[in-house]
Amino acid sequence: MKVAIIGATGYGGVELVRILHQHKFINKYSLHSSSQAGVQITESYPHLSNISKQKLETIEIEKISKEAEIVFMATPSGISSQLTPAFIENGVKVIDLSGDFRFSDPVMYETWYKKTTAPRELLEKAVYGLTELNRKKIKTASLIANPGCYPTATILGLYPLLKNLAIDLDSIIVDAKSGVSGAGRKASLQTNYCEINENFRIYKVNEHQHIPEIEQALKVANSNLGPIKFNSHLVPMTRGIMATIYCKPLNSISETALRELYVHQYENDPFVRIRRIGEYPATKEVYGSNYCDIGITFDERTGWITIVSVIDNLMKGAAGQAVQNLNVMLGIDEKTALLGPPVFP
Amino acid sequence: MKVAIIGATGYGGVELVRILHQHKFINKYSLHSSSQAGVQITESYPHLSNISKQKLETIEIEKISKEAEIVFMATPSGISSQLTPAFIENGVKVIDLSGDFRFSDPVMYETWYKKTTAPRELLEKAVYGLTELNRKKIKTASLIANPGCYPTATILGLYPLLKNLAIDLDSIIVDAKSGVSGAGRKASLQTNYCEINENFRIYKVNEHQHIPEIEQALKVANSNLGPIKFNSHLVPMTRGIMATIYCKPLNSISETALRELYVHQYENDPFVRIRRIGEYPATKEVYGSNYCDIGITFDERTGWITIVSVIDNLMKGAAGQAVQNLNVMLGIDEKTALLGPPVFP
Amino acid sequence: MKVAIIGATGYGGVELVRILHQHKFINKYSLHSSSQAGVQITESYPHLSNISKQKLETIEIEKISKEAEIVFMATPSGISSQLTPAFIENGVKVIDLSGDFRFSDPVMYETWYKKTTAPRELLEKAVYGLTELNRKKIKTASLIANPGCYPTATILGLYPLLKNLAIDLDSIIVDAKSGVSGAGRKASLQTNYCEINENFRIYKVNEHQHIPEIEQALKVANSNLGPIKFNSHLVPMTRGIMATIYCKPLNSISETALRELYVHQYENDPFVRIRRIGEYPATKEVYGSNYCDIGITFDERTGWITIVSVIDNLMKGAAGQAVQNLNVMLGIDEKTALLGPPVFP
Amino acid sequence: MKVAIIGATGYGGVELVRILHQHKFINKYSLHSSSQAGVQITESYPHLSNISKQKLETIEIEKISKEAEIVFMATPSGISSQLTPAFIENGVKVIDLSGDFRFSDPVMYETWYKKTTAPRELLEKAVYGLTELNRKKIKTASLIANPGCYPTATILGLYPLLKNLAIDLDSIIVDAKSGVSGAGRKASLQTNYCEINENFRIYKVNEHQHIPEIEQALKVANSNLGPIKFNSHLVPMTRGIMATIYCKPLNSISETALRELYVHQYENDPFVRIRRIGEYPATKEVYGSNYCDIGITFDERTGWITIVSVIDNLMKGAAGQAVQNLNVMLGIDEKTALLGPPVFP
Repeated sequence: MKVAIIGATGYGGVELVRILHQHKFINKYSLHSSSQAGVQITESYPHLSNISKQKLETIEIEKISKEAEIVFMATPSGISSQLTPAFIENGVKVIDLSGDFRFSDPVMYETWYKKTTAPRELLEKAVYGLTELNRKKIKTASLIANPGCYPTATILGLYPLLKNLAIDLDSIIVDAKSGVSGAGRKASLQTNYCEINENFRIYKVNEHQHIPEIEQALKVANSNLGPIKFNSHLVPMTRGIMATIYCKPLNSISETALRELYVHQYENDPFVRIRRIGEYPATKEVYGSNYCDIGITFDERTGWITIVSVIDNLMKGAAGQAVQNLNVMLGIDEKTALLGPPVFP
Repeated sequence: MKVAIIGATGYGGVELVRILHQHKFINKYSLHSSSQAGVQITESYPHLSNISKQKLETIEIEKISKEAEIVFMATPSGISSQLTPAFIENGVKVIDLSGDFRFSDPVMYETWYKKTTAPRELLEKAVYGLTELNRKKIKTASLIANPGCYPTATILGLYPLLKNLAIDLDSIIVDAKSGVSGAGRKASLQTNYCEINENFRIYKVNEHQHIPEIEQALKVANSNLGPIKFNSHLVPMTRGIMATIYCKPLNSISETALRELYVHQYENDPFVRIRRIGEYPATKEVYGSNYCDIGITFDERTGWITIVSVIDNLMKGAAGQAVQNLNVMLGIDEKTALLGPPVFP
Repeated sequence: MKVAIIGATGYGGVELVRILHQHKFINKYSLHSSSQAGVQITESYPHLSNISKQKLETIEIEKISKEAEIVFMATPSGISSQLTPAFIENGVKVIDLSGDFRFSDPVMYETWYKKTTAPRELLEKAVYGLTELNRKKIKTASLIANPGCYPTATILGLYPLLKNLAIDLDSIIVDAKSGVSGAGRKASLQTNYCEINENFRIYKVNEHQHIPEIEQALKVANSNLGPIKFNSHLVPMTRGIMATIYCKPLNSISETALRELYVHQYENDPFVRIRRIGEYPATKEVYGSNYCDIGITFDERTGWITIVSVIDNLMKGAAGQAVQNLNVMLGIDEKTALLGPPVFP
Repeated sequence: MKVAIIGATGYGGVELVRILHQHKFINKYSLHSSSQAGVQITESYPHLSNISKQKLETIEIEKISKEAEIVFMATPSGISSQLTPAFIENGVKVIDLSGDFRFSDPVMYETWYKKTTAPRELLEKAVYGLTELNRKKIKTASLIANPGCYPTATILGLYPLLKNLAIDLDSIIVDAKSGVSGAGRKASLQTNYCEINENFRIYKVNEHQHIPEIEQALKVANSNLGPIKFNSHLVPMTRGIMATIYCKPLNSISETALRELYVHQYENDPFVRIRRIGEYPATKEVYGSNYCDIGITFDERTGWITIVSVIDNLMKGAAGQAVQNLNVMLGIDEKTALLGPPVFP
């Protein structure tokens, strides 16, 4: 089995390398970069010394199509929409980590990403790769739109509620917090160490491109869902996302019954861990792993539910889920290469 | 003018030292500690070398009453309720940084703090020291209940709305985040560096003792207010609080009109800065200073308001506001010793 | 194959769990703790939810001796010296991560650790577990004194020089820096987040207990070696050690020749990576992995050599090297369970 | 009194604003920037909202010369050498925070900075602004070469030794560590948060441009001094420098006598604090202040001295020392606007 990683010099790409290096069914992975072709990957990432001796290669679609069975697109938005059609035509399957194929409605992409959309026929073909919700379709898909990091944490946190409980749909608030690696590997004043360290900021208020992705996915659970209130914050840390989710059920509910909805929903999902009543996950508790941990509570005093959902944004929020989808597509154990426990402390 | 600081070895106490050291009307401040009396303050805090050559003294109420005109209580909850009555009796004014005198209703304190309340007659005498809202009463008070850190950020962020705008009172959500210094200076596994660093966690879910303090203060603005949904999170940083506040107005409102409510409310308050439309404060932008910075937006798409309110928890959230209250009590310029710009970066 | 971990609730112990969980030849590991016996490990470490369902057990030497073939002692200094003799007597092999068996001369232990030494006959039996230097002895040992974190980085960095190059022995300076996890998991004011964050400090000046350990090991390479100048600093990060080592060769040497000494010394050592000329490792480049990365330079202008040696203190500096030694003792591939690439970023 | 800050949008420039804002003898300071002229300073630095309402102005030498008596050059290296001559000609005094005027020998600048030197006649005119050593010359100077951050910490730490004690001159090692703000405010991959956080790295090995600056200054104390062994490391923190300095005295010396050399040297220097025997400063203990704190020890076992010298790189290492020099030039109290205690925690 051979795969190719397009955009291997970003944080998502190099996290794929970390996982695939230990994947027993992947014989070979080639690394591709438009900007650094010809250069050893260890020039950019010396932590891979003695591990990956590969050179970064150009992005030649025909050549890659001959050599790889599956291609990971770990590129910025707007690139995959251009490269993927040719791969699909050549019979190569694609797992796209960018946002380019996540919307069935091209207007959404153009409105929120302010870029040209991918071809409509491919949008229809693409399967939204939130493994826990779409496992069956992923199995036979040729094009996976791997979910965004905030959507993964949020959707897994809200889905069981929206599907099973009567809640005030206008009450839902998602207050999300992320480490800085989600911003990618690039020179930027906004992510300069001194601007982030010992600082906490809100960003993209009301206009984060992950908002419509969350809405689209959750409408599957409850078609009456309206616009979601969502805000994103930057935490002075490298990895980790927490979504603190608030909503009001129409009726009072016991915490045991509430928790049971989650346990039941995810009983066959090895990477979703529902915490004990009264226990809430911290981001470090999934660090470097593919887990999504969820804690839930109902406050008798206010009548509101709080859901706490955490992931590692580079793992379950990007490369980890991409490999989870790869495993499903290959028909092998979904957990292959993903069982490393979180790194703590 | 001479003052005394009881509990000088905590982070709140030493921040008082930093401010009072530059206060031109304070000739002398004595430092008191039950656990470390007789020891130089520089043993605990070598950053004060050559600055404060004082020894920590015992807490002898009669002696202090003779020497100091105003006493700052920078003690853990449950201490001030025992010491303050004697100071007041001796005619010494008290600014209490703990929670002991913040509730007019003693049941609230006992319910949320799970400790014995202060004497009821003193609770009635105490003035809640949120300077911007209670300046007139503070001027003549003999006992100030200095507000908590989360309440300061939250109340300043919500007050103009609750007083002036028709909003769905059940919609209010306060998602608050704090640096670690709010937990105080003590040996503790929970605040061990390795447990906090590169981690983001939620804590005291639904049961933070600052919740009823916020509710009590905001009921002044709108007596129909019910229970507030409030959660607190720990950010891997030392100083800073952000409250991200969500609520739904009954009618659509322009951002200009919304901002005007805040500008008008705080037009004579030197430490509240209302940001431009589209600009939201980050915690580092008030670091080490007494400012509370507020950004506000109305999202047409969802019909909800988001308010972002930040403070330095040790300054406007504790020692800074205590000195601001001291200045008001003394009838001097409220800004005395508090005009140092934020330390950035 | 079954092993036991004594002291499983410390950072070293839980790092052993992370590694052994993925070790294909370990069927079972039991976890033991004197303070928390009877409690689920997930109470202390919720990141192990669904991963380790074990309860912490008491430390009953006879019972453990029957069930485990090898015991890891991940206990504070002074404990292993008391427990290990009985295990050895029962025919159980011991890998001790503490300092209790690292000195052949008991006076050294008592002088630097200020505690009672282990029995002399066991000290003689113990093999110093720096795998790269003692592989042959480790293979047949029944008691391994697993090296300290600073010694591992320092010895691997200096050994090839001392063995092969004429240097001014009095010139050697080791300026070492460590993340905070080396201090262990405990409530302590010194490691409180607010005391460490945005701070850099020196500690145990001239008196770190790792100094004599380094000297003892390096005297094997050059018996004329005198006292080492060594200082340790605390870096505001969780994991990672860098030793910056300075020394003066008696003669000028080319960087190529210098590097060759290292390449040659470690050519069969999978976990030592010698960097290219002009490239120096950063601690993050070995994060979560068992690698020791080394960069070397000779400065023509000053005539001095600088060596930069980095490890992850919990991995190659503790649990990783312990498992590396376990593998050697078992006669299996030394790299088993240790091939996970560094986690970057 | 009016001053101008050229290069006001860098971290050094904005730290000057923080200090000068509280300087009672400065009526007005104008801010100049080539890249952002016409823009409000609060656009770049919203923490200055309500504090500095100024617009950034162009760098027009004639206009500035008419309005300002003293100009601070807070520009990258290579700029001041071009602008300063005209200011000096116009009779305006200049305090240059860059490296452009620090060497009396132009070859040194060109060798280490790899840029064109400033005019030789101005190099001769420039006074090296390490206040504690050159106070008298600074008083009457028209051009101050404000020292670099590493040199300030290192020179203050070594000067009393070199001047007063017989030491092995070839033994001196300076192992220096710095926070990230020293790299300036700019978009850069090297200072991206994720590359710095939870990481410790060495950089510019053997080739830091501050090396010859240190050597030049210390040769004043002992003209036999040869090349210094100096290395710089990047600490995951924003502010702070520690120089750990090693050297070998020709004879044994008591710690009391050693400390006395320092106390004596700096007895009239308000910003140098010599710590008690056995006490070593941490960087946080001078955070945001103009202090240089020094701890010294002599190790009987090895016969070596260790000196620990810390500063805040933006204060005593840049803007603070620049204002200290300004005060000396103005003949006012050297401590004016510089007495704010360190911000701790």
